[in-house]
Amino acid sequence: MALFDLAPADLETYLPDIDEPDDFDAFWAKTLEEARSVDVGLELEPVETGLELVESYDVTFRGFGGHPVKGWLTRPAVRPGPLPAVVQYLGYGGGRGRPVEHLAWATAGYVHLLMDTRGQGSRWGTGGDTPDPVGSAPSVPGFLTRGILDPAEHYYRRVFTDGVRAVDAVRTVEGVDPQDVTVCGASQGGGITLAVAGLVPGLRAAMPDVPFLCHYRRATEITDAMPYAEITQYLAVHRGRAEDAFRTLSYLDGVSFARRADAPTLFSVALMDTTCPPSTVYAAFNNYGARAGDVVKDIEVYRYNQHEGGQAAQLTRQIAWLADIR
Amino acid sequence: MALFDLAPADLETYLPDIDEPDDFDAFWAKTLEEARSVDVGLELEPVETGLELVESYDVTFRGFGGHPVKGWLTRPAVRPGPLPAVVQYLGYGGGRGRPVEHLAWATAGYVHLLMDTRGQGSRWGTGGDTPDPVGSAPSVPGFLTRGILDPAEHYYRRVFTDGVRAVDAVRTVEGVDPQDVTVCGASQGGGITLAVAGLVPGLRAAMPDVPFLCHYRRATEITDAMPYAEITQYLAVHRGRAEDAFRTLSYLDGVSFARRADAPTLFSVALMDTTCPPSTVYAAFNNYGARAGDVVKDIEVYRYNQHEGGQAAQLTRQIAWLADIR
Amino acid sequence: MALFDLAPADLETYLPDIDEPDDFDAFWAKTLEEARSVDVGLELEPVETGLELVESYDVTFRGFGGHPVKGWLTRPAVRPGPLPAVVQYLGYGGGRGRPVEHLAWATAGYVHLLMDTRGQGSRWGTGGDTPDPVGSAPSVPGFLTRGILDPAEHYYRRVFTDGVRAVDAVRTVEGVDPQDVTVCGASQGGGITLAVAGLVPGLRAAMPDVPFLCHYRRATEITDAMPYAEITQYLAVHRGRAEDAFRTLSYLDGVSFARRADAPTLFSVALMDTTCPPSTVYAAFNNYGARAGDVVKDIEVYRYNQHEGGQAAQLTRQIAWLADIR
Amino acid sequence: MALFDLAPADLETYLPDIDEPDDFDAFWAKTLEEARSVDVGLELEPVETGLELVESYDVTFRGFGGHPVKGWLTRPAVRPGPLPAVVQYLGYGGGRGRPVEHLAWATAGYVHLLMDTRGQGSRWGTGGDTPDPVGSAPSVPGFLTRGILDPAEHYYRRVFTDGVRAVDAVRTVEGVDPQDVTVCGASQGGGITLAVAGLVPGLRAAMPDVPFLCHYRRATEITDAMPYAEITQYLAVHRGRAEDAFRTLSYLDGVSFARRADAPTLFSVALMDTTCPPSTVYAAFNNYGARAGDVVKDIEVYRYNQHEGGQAAQLTRQIAWLADIR
Amino acid sequence: MALFDLAPADLETYLPDIDEPDDFDAFWAKTLEEARSVDVGLELEPVETGLELVESYDVTFRGFGGHPVKGWLTRPAVRPGPLPAVVQYLGYGGGRGRPVEHLAWATAGYVHLLMDTRGQGSRWGTGGDTPDPVGSAPSVPGFLTRGILDPAEHYYRRVFTDGVRAVDAVRTVEGVDPQDVTVCGASQGGGITLAVAGLVPGLRAAMPDVPFLCHYRRATEITDAMPYAEITQYLAVHRGRAEDAFRTLSYLDGVSFARRADAPTLFSVALMDTTCPPSTVYAAFNNYGARAGDVVKDIEVYRYNQHEGGQAAQLTRQIAWLADIR
Amino acid sequence: MALFDLAPADLETYLPDIDEPDDFDAFWAKTLEEARSVDVGLELEPVETGLELVESYDVTFRGFGGHPVKGWLTRPAVRPGPLPAVVQYLGYGGGRGRPVEHLAWATAGYVHLLMDTRGQGSRWGTGGDTPDPVGSAPSVPGFLTRGILDPAEHYYRRVFTDGVRAVDAVRTVEGVDPQDVTVCGASQGGGITLAVAGLVPGLRAAMPDVPFLCHYRRATEITDAMPYAEITQYLAVHRGRAEDAFRTLSYLDGVSFARRADAPTLFSVALMDTTCPPSTVYAAFNNYGARAGDVVKDIEVYRYNQHEGGQAAQLTRQIAWLADIR
Repeated sequence: MALFDLAPADLETYLPDIDEPDDFDAFWAKTLEEARSVDVGLELEPVETGLELVESYDVTFRGFGGHPVKGWLTRPAVRPGPLPAVVQYLGYGGGRGRPVEHLAWATAGYVHLLMDTRGQGSRWGTGGDTPDPVGSAPSVPGFLTRGILDPAEHYYRRVFTDGVRAVDAVRTVEGVDPQDVTVCGASQGGGITLAVAGLVPGLRAAMPDVPFLCHYRRATEITDAMPYAEITQYLAVHRGRAEDAFRTLSYLDGVSFARRADAPTLFSVALMDTTCPPSTVYAAFNNYGARAGDVVKDIEVYRYNQHEGGQAAQLTRQIAWLADIR
Repeated sequence: MALFDLAPADLETYLPDIDEPDDFDAFWAKTLEEARSVDVGLELEPVETGLELVESYDVTFRGFGGHPVKGWLTRPAVRPGPLPAVVQYLGYGGGRGRPVEHLAWATAGYVHLLMDTRGQGSRWGTGGDTPDPVGSAPSVPGFLTRGILDPAEHYYRRVFTDGVRAVDAVRTVEGVDPQDVTVCGASQGGGITLAVAGLVPGLRAAMPDVPFLCHYRRATEITDAMPYAEITQYLAVHRGRAEDAFRTLSYLDGVSFARRADAPTLFSVALMDTTCPPSTVYAAFNNYGARAGDVVKDIEVYRYNQHEGGQAAQLTRQIAWLADIR
Repeated sequence: MALFDLAPADLETYLPDIDEPDDFDAFWAKTLEEARSVDVGLELEPVETGLELVESYDVTFRGFGGHPVKGWLTRPAVRPGPLPAVVQYLGYGGGRGRPVEHLAWATAGYVHLLMDTRGQGSRWGTGGDTPDPVGSAPSVPGFLTRGILDPAEHYYRRVFTDGVRAVDAVRTVEGVDPQDVTVCGASQGGGITLAVAGLVPGLRAAMPDVPFLCHYRRATEITDAMPYAEITQYLAVHRGRAEDAFRTLSYLDGVSFARRADAPTLFSVALMDTTCPPSTVYAAFNNYGARAGDVVKDIEVYRYNQHEGGQAAQLTRQIAWLADIR
Repeated sequence: MALFDLAPADLETYLPDIDEPDDFDAFWAKTLEEARSVDVGLELEPVETGLELVESYDVTFRGFGGHPVKGWLTRPAVRPGPLPAVVQYLGYGGGRGRPVEHLAWATAGYVHLLMDTRGQGSRWGTGGDTPDPVGSAPSVPGFLTRGILDPAEHYYRRVFTDGVRAVDAVRTVEGVDPQDVTVCGASQGGGITLAVAGLVPGLRAAMPDVPFLCHYRRATEITDAMPYAEITQYLAVHRGRAEDAFRTLSYLDGVSFARRADAPTLFSVALMDTTCPPSTVYAAFNNYGARAGDVVKDIEVYRYNQHEGGQAAQLTRQIAWLADIR
Repeated sequence: MALFDLAPADLETYLPDIDEPDDFDAFWAKTLEEARSVDVGLELEPVETGLELVESYDVTFRGFGGHPVKGWLTRPAVRPGPLPAVVQYLGYGGGRGRPVEHLAWATAGYVHLLMDTRGQGSRWGTGGDTPDPVGSAPSVPGFLTRGILDPAEHYYRRVFTDGVRAVDAVRTVEGVDPQDVTVCGASQGGGITLAVAGLVPGLRAAMPDVPFLCHYRRATEITDAMPYAEITQYLAVHRGRAEDAFRTLSYLDGVSFARRADAPTLFSVALMDTTCPPSTVYAAFNNYGARAGDVVKDIEVYRYNQHEGGQAAQLTRQIAWLADIR
Repeated sequence: MALFDLAPADLETYLPDIDEPDDFDAFWAKTLEEARSVDVGLELEPVETGLELVESYDVTFRGFGGHPVKGWLTRPAVRPGPLPAVVQYLGYGGGRGRPVEHLAWATAGYVHLLMDTRGQGSRWGTGGDTPDPVGSAPSVPGFLTRGILDPAEHYYRRVFTDGVRAVDAVRTVEGVDPQDVTVCGASQGGGITLAVAGLVPGLRAAMPDVPFLCHYRRATEITDAMPYAEITQYLAVHRGRAEDAFRTLSYLDGVSFARRADAPTLFSVALMDTTCPPSTVYAAFNNYGARAGDVVKDIEVYRYNQHEGGQAAQLTRQIAWLADIR
C-alpha cells in the first residue's frame, strides 16, 4: 500500500475543524448519569482454564440501559496487595473469545478486564457473548449506521457508555487500586479508549492503537475501506440524509473525546492504514488533551504498516511505556 | 458460471429429508395468534407522485409485536368495482424505495401492496423506512443469524409474521376482493412468499422467484455466496453451535412452509444461481402443496442465469399466468 | 468509494478546453441530411402485455443509413387529446427488454418511446433487438473504439443519428404534440441525450443522468473503469494512434453537443462515480446552452453515489421538474 | 488451479455425442465455393525490418466475401529451391503485430504466413490491421456471439473461410511447395487450425495447441472463463434462444472439423486449462481423422498448466515433430 | 467456503496409497546422525520483557548443518522442580516475533520453546531472526520448491532436522523433565510437528493443528491455494519434472512421518480448509501410529472453519487434553 | 489505468535527490575485482534446435563467487567476420527458457547472449537453470529483500556482478568484436542493464526498457505493486529497519548506476506503469550519463501502456536505433 493520505510532516501538524455540537458535554453527562443510576453490579465467576499462573473470571456488569455486558478478568494467581488495572476494548466484529487469548497484561502484573462489545463477536475469532437488546432503523450491515439519524439511538452511544461502566466496574474489584486504571484497545477498541478517556477523568493512562471512530467526514472522503464505508453506503441509499447523519456522528467523534482527555497517552498510527487513515488518527492525537493542557503525549508511527499497525511490537512498547509512566 | 449443483434432471426429482420440528405448526399458530391480538391498523396516506394513471399511498400497518411496518399501496386511478390484490415482498438488503419503482401490478389492474422489510433498506436502492426495534445476541452483519440460537428470537420469525399481516391488511382495503389476494417476491421476497403461502390459507396464488431461505443446511454445504454464508461465518466463529442454529432455522425453512401451502404457484429458478442454489429452490418446489395435494404448480427454469433469474421475462410471464389462473 | 476527482467547489466552475474541430457542425449537418433523406418510416405494432392502463407498441423506424431501429412505445390507454412525449435512450450494453420494465412515463401521462441501441443488448437485462449492420476495423470488445480512427466510421455517429431520428419518429405519432418532446437517459443514454439536445432544436427539455461520452481525454487520465478504459486499452495496443483517435472522438463529445443545446435541462451527477467521473459531467453541464445563452439549467448532485446516481430518486425528481417546466 | 475436468484416464477415451447438422458439409462446400469465386489476389509488399537472415512481406489476400485480409510472410533470405510452408493463426483478441515477433518458422527454414484475424487485434500485443466489414445483431462484447442466431451470419464462418484462403494464398507464393503446407495455431488459432484441417484436404500436417472453438455446449457447463462464457452471458440475457444458438455453433464446432481432417496431427492440451477445458480438446482429438481413418495422431499433455499450455516447449516439440513427419 | 473435499464420513476412513521410498528411514537416520554430530549448543540469554510472572530467554541452538537457529524460551518465573516442556513450531511465512505473543504454555506451567523457522519471518507478524544459509536451484517464491529436484537439497530436510534438534535442545534445559516433552504447531508448524513425532521416539504427545506438508500429490489436485500451489506453479514451468519433484517430496511427507509416530496425539482439522485440505490431514491422522499400533489418537473437527481452524478453542482444548494425558 | 504519477511534463525534468553512499564506487570496484579473480570460463555447447538459419549454444560462465551462470548464445549460421554482440537480461521470475524464444537479435545479425538469472525461472515461461547457492536471512518470498540488511549480502550484488561477467564472457567469443557489445533488457533486465552500463565502460550501447530497480524509496511510496512492494512488506514486518534497508539498496540503485554510464542509450518508459512507475524510470534517465556528460540519450514514451511497455514496437525501434548508432 503506497502512501495515500497527507505527507508525514503534514500529519504531525494536522488540526482540522471538527463539527462539535454545543450540547456535546450535556449529552454525555446525561447519558452517563442515566447509566450510573443502575448499580454496576459486577459479577465475577471463576473459570477453570488450566493456566496456573493466573486466575480467570467470567465477568458480567451493567452497561448502558442496565444491560448485562460480558468480559474476562484475568489477574496474577498470587496477589501482592493493590494492583494496577488495564481495561481493554476489542476491535470491530470480534468478541471476547477465550481467556487464553488475553494473557499479556496479567502476566505483566496487572488486573486485566477485557470488555466484550455488545452485539458483536460473530465475524472473526472465537465469539462474543453480549447481546445488544436494542434494535434500529434500517442500517447497513454492521454497526456504524445503527441509529445514525439520532444521537440518542446510535449504537456507539451504548458502547461508549459500556466502556465507561467497565472502568467503573474494575474500580470495584477487590485488590485493584482505583487510582491506577489504564484503558487501551486497537481500532474500534482504540475509538472506545478515546471515548472513555474523554469521559472519565483521573485515568492512569490511555493507549489507543490505530483508533477507529475519529473524524468521520474526512474518513468518508479519503477511503473506500470498511467499516467507515458503511457511512458512505448508507448515504448513497438514503440520499439527502448526510447532514443528519454527520450531526449524529458529531456526538461520537474520537476527536472531540480526545480534546477532553486528561490522562497521559501513547497512541499508535500506521501510515499505510486505509481502514483508519492516518489523518483521522492524527486529528485525534493532535487534539488530545487540548482542554486539560500539559498532558504527556506520545505516538508510535508505523511507517510501512497497514491497519495491523505495530502488533506485538506495540504491545511490547506499551508494557514498557506504562511501567515508566506509573 | 458453470453448472455447479445437481444435474437438471436430478433437480426435478430432488426430495431431500428436511428436519422439521414436531411443534412447527404450534410454534407458528402461537406466533400468529399473538400478532393478530393487535389490530392490523392499516393507515393509507395519499402520496403525490405525478403518476396520473395510478393512486399511490404511504402504508403503515401493525406487524409482529404490533410494530409499525411500512409499504406502498398503488392502485388504478379509476376504480371499477372489487379488484384483485398482489402483495409483494422485497429482496435482501433493499427497502420499499419510491412508488415510481413499482408500477407493473397496478398498471395490470391490481391493487398492489409492497411491504417494506423491517431493519433493511440501506444496502441498495432508494431506502427503507421500517425499523426493527428488536435487538439480538451477537450476529454476523446482516439478518440471517440474528437470534439464530432461539426460534422465538429469530429475525425471520418477525418478518414472516409481518408478511402474513400484510395480507391481513390488504384484505381490509376498500375495493379489494379479499378472496383474490396473490403473494409474490424474488429472493428474500420469494422466501417470505413461501412462508406466507404456508401460513395463510385461501390465497389466489403464490409466485416465488429464485427464493432464498430454503433448505439451509444444504445451502451452507454447496455455496460460499452471501447471504447463506452468514450461517457458515457464524458457525465458524461460534464453534459447536451448529445443531442449535439449524434447529432454529428448521422453524423458518421455506421447504416446510411449501409443504403446507395450498394456493396455485408459479416458481422460477436459475440453474447457475450460486446465491440461492437450484437444489434449495427445487427442494421447496418439489414439496410445495404436499399436504393439500392436487395443487397447480409450475416452474420457469432459467438455464443460463445466475441469481438475477428471469427479471422482466418472468414478470411478463407472471402477469399472463396470473390472468390465466384467475 | 472516496472522492477521487476535483473538489466539489472546483467542479462547479470547471470549464476545460475541449478540442472541437472546425467542421463539427458541417459534419453533423451532412450526417443528418443523409439520414433524413430516407423516410423515418415509423411502424407501430400493438403488443399484448396484460397492462390494462397503458397501450404498448413494438416500434421500428429508420435510423442511420436507413437501418431499422427498434423500440417500445407506451402510452395511456385512455387518450385525452395531444400528449407530450418522452424519448428515452439506454445505458451501455443493455437492450430495450420488455415493455413491462418501462412504465413510469406513460403512467405519468406521456407518450414514451424507448429507443433500442443498435448492436447492444446482450450484456445485461432482457435483451436488445436492433442489429448494427456495419462492421469495423479492429476494436476493443465493446463499442467505444469501433471506427475510432475515422469520425465517419465511428459507431456513435450511427447511434447519435438514430437518436435524432427517434425524435423525428415520435413527432409523427398520432396524438403526440410535436412541440412537446423531451429526451432523457442515463449513462450512455445521457450521452445520447446530450447529442440529440445539441442536434435537434426546439425540444421541450433534456434530462441526462450521469452522462457518458463526454470529455474523453480527461476520462482516460482520471479513471481505469470501463467503458472509458476501452480507449486506453485501444491506445495501449495501437501505439502512436492517440491523436487520430482523439480527433475522431472530438466529433462525438457531449461537451460540444451541450454547447449547442437550447432546451431546458436537468442533469444529475454522482460525485463518487468512477465510470463517468464528475468532472466529465460538469464539463458538459457548465458548457450546456453556451451558444443559445439564457437556458434553464439545473443539476442534481448525488454526493455519496457511484455510477448508480439517483436512481428512482432522480426519476421522481424528473417527473416533478418536467411537470413544472412545461 | 486444481484438476477440475474429467480424470486424465477418462479424457483419453472421451467420445461425447456432438450435434452435427445434416447439411454441415453442404454448408461449408457452398461457403468455400462462394469465397473461391473471388481470386485470392495475394499481394506481397517487402518490409524493411533490419532482420538480415529473413525477408519479411506485408501480406494482403482476399478472404470471405472478397474482403482484404492482412498477414506477414517471412522466409529465409537465402532461398534454396521449393520450400515447405507453415500457415499460423492467432489467439483471441490479438493481431498480427510486428514481423519481429514471429521468427521461429522462417528461422527453421519454412515460408511462414501469419494470418491476421478480422476485427481483432486491439486487446493485447501490438495490433491487428484487418477490418471485419460485416456488422451483427446484438452480441456480447467479443466475437463468439456475433451472428449466433444464424450460421450464415456467424463471425467464425468468415474467419474459418479466411483461414482456408490463407492456405490457398500461400500455395501461390513463388518458391513454396504447395504439397507441403502445414497449419498451426494456439487457442483460437488452434480452433481455426482444426477448421482448416477439416476443410482443406492434402495438408502436410495440422498442429493445434490448446484449441478453442470445440464442443461448445460442454464448455458452457464446465467453465465460467471467457471467452466461452460469452455464450453463457448471451443466453442469460436472450432467454429461450439456447437451441437456436447451439444449432448455429454446431456448424462451427472443432469436433466436427476434426472428424473430417486427414492430415497428420500434433495436438497439445493442458489439464488445468479452464479457458479451453481439456475435455473439449480431447473431444476434438479423439474424433480427429475419424472419417479418413489411419491418420498419424499425437498429443502432448501438459499436466500442470493452465491455458498457457506448453509455450516454447511445445514450439520446440513441433519443430522436431514436423521435421520427422516430413 | 462450501464443502469441497471428500464427504465427512469418507474422510474418517480415507487411507490413500502414499509413495514412500524404500530408503526413507535410512535417509532420515543419516540426516539426523549428521546433524547430531554437532553439539546442540543451546544458548539462553535472558530478555527483559516486563512480564513479571514468566522468564523469557533469547534462544540459539545448532540445527541442520550446525547452523544457528533462534527461538524464545518462556517459563514460569517461580520454578517448582522438573517441569514438562512444550516445543512449538510456526506457520508458513512467520517468525518468532516477540516473547509477549507466546504466553499460554508458560502460563499453564510448561517450559515453552518456540522455534523460529529458518529463512522465514518476513511475510506477517513481527519478524523472524534465523537465516537459511543454503541457496537453491530456481524455485517459486516461497519455500516449498527450494531444492525440489533432490531430497538432500530440499528446504524442509533442513527445517525438520531443526525441529528434531529443538527437542534435543529443550531436553538439556535445566529444570526440564526430558521425558515430558510435547511438540505442537499449526499449519506448517503442524507439518513439522508430524515430522518430529515420526523421527523422535518417546515424546509425551504431538498436537498438530490443520497440518501442512502432507499428501502432496493429492493437494495439488484438489486445491489452487498457496502454498501447495507452489508445487503446481513449479511444475507448470518446469514441464516434465513432476516425477522427480514428487519423489523428493516423498521423503518429506507428513503421512509417512505419521506412520512412524508413537506418541499420543491430538489433531485438529477444518472441513472448509482449502489451504490444507481435510483429506490431506486425515491421510496423516488415519495413518498416525500405524507402525507402533495402539497409540492414543484424537482429532477435533471444525466443520465450518477454513484454515484458521479452532484457534483459541483448540488451544483451550489442547491445554485440557494434555493435562489429562500426562 | 489512469495516470497516477507525476504529470508528463514534470517527469521530463524530474531530478530527485537519491541517497548515494560515499563508498559506492569502492564497493563495486572491490566486488568486481573479486569476481574477476576467477576466470570467466566460458563454455559453449552446441544445441540441436532445427533452426537452420542460426546456431545455438548452451552457455556456462563464472559469475559472482565463481558460481556457474547459464545462458543461451545464438548467432547467424553463416559467419561473415567479426560480429557485434547483444547481451540481454531477463525480467523478474523468468528463466532463459528455450533457444527458440529468443531469435530476433541473431536474425538481425548479432551474436546474442541471453543471461539466465540465478535462482529465478520458476514463476513463468519455460524455466531457468541457474542456482543461486547463497542463502539469506529472513526475506519476503521473491528476491528483492534477500540480504536487504547488508549490501555485501544482497541478492542483486550477485546478479549485477553476473551481468558484468556476461559482458566479459561474450567478449571472449570467437568472431565477436569486443568493442561492439550492447546490453539490453526489460524490467529487471532493464535494471541489470543500467547496472552493467554503470560498471562497464566502453559499451556500444545500453537499452533498458521500463527498468526495475531504480529509486527504491519513491517506488515504495507511490505503488502497491509487486515486486517493489516486497520492500514495503519487509518493512511492515521488520519494523524499525527501514534505514538499514534503504542504505543497502542505495548500493544497488539504477539511478546511481545511470549517472556513471557512458554508452549511448535508448530507454523506454510507460506512463501507466504501476510496476515500475514512470518517475522511477525518469529518475534514472534524467541522471543517465551525468558523469561522462555529452552522452547520446533517447527515450521512447508509451503514454497509454502499463508495464508491458512497447513490446515488439520497442524491439523494432531498438533494431533500427542500434543500427543507426553503430
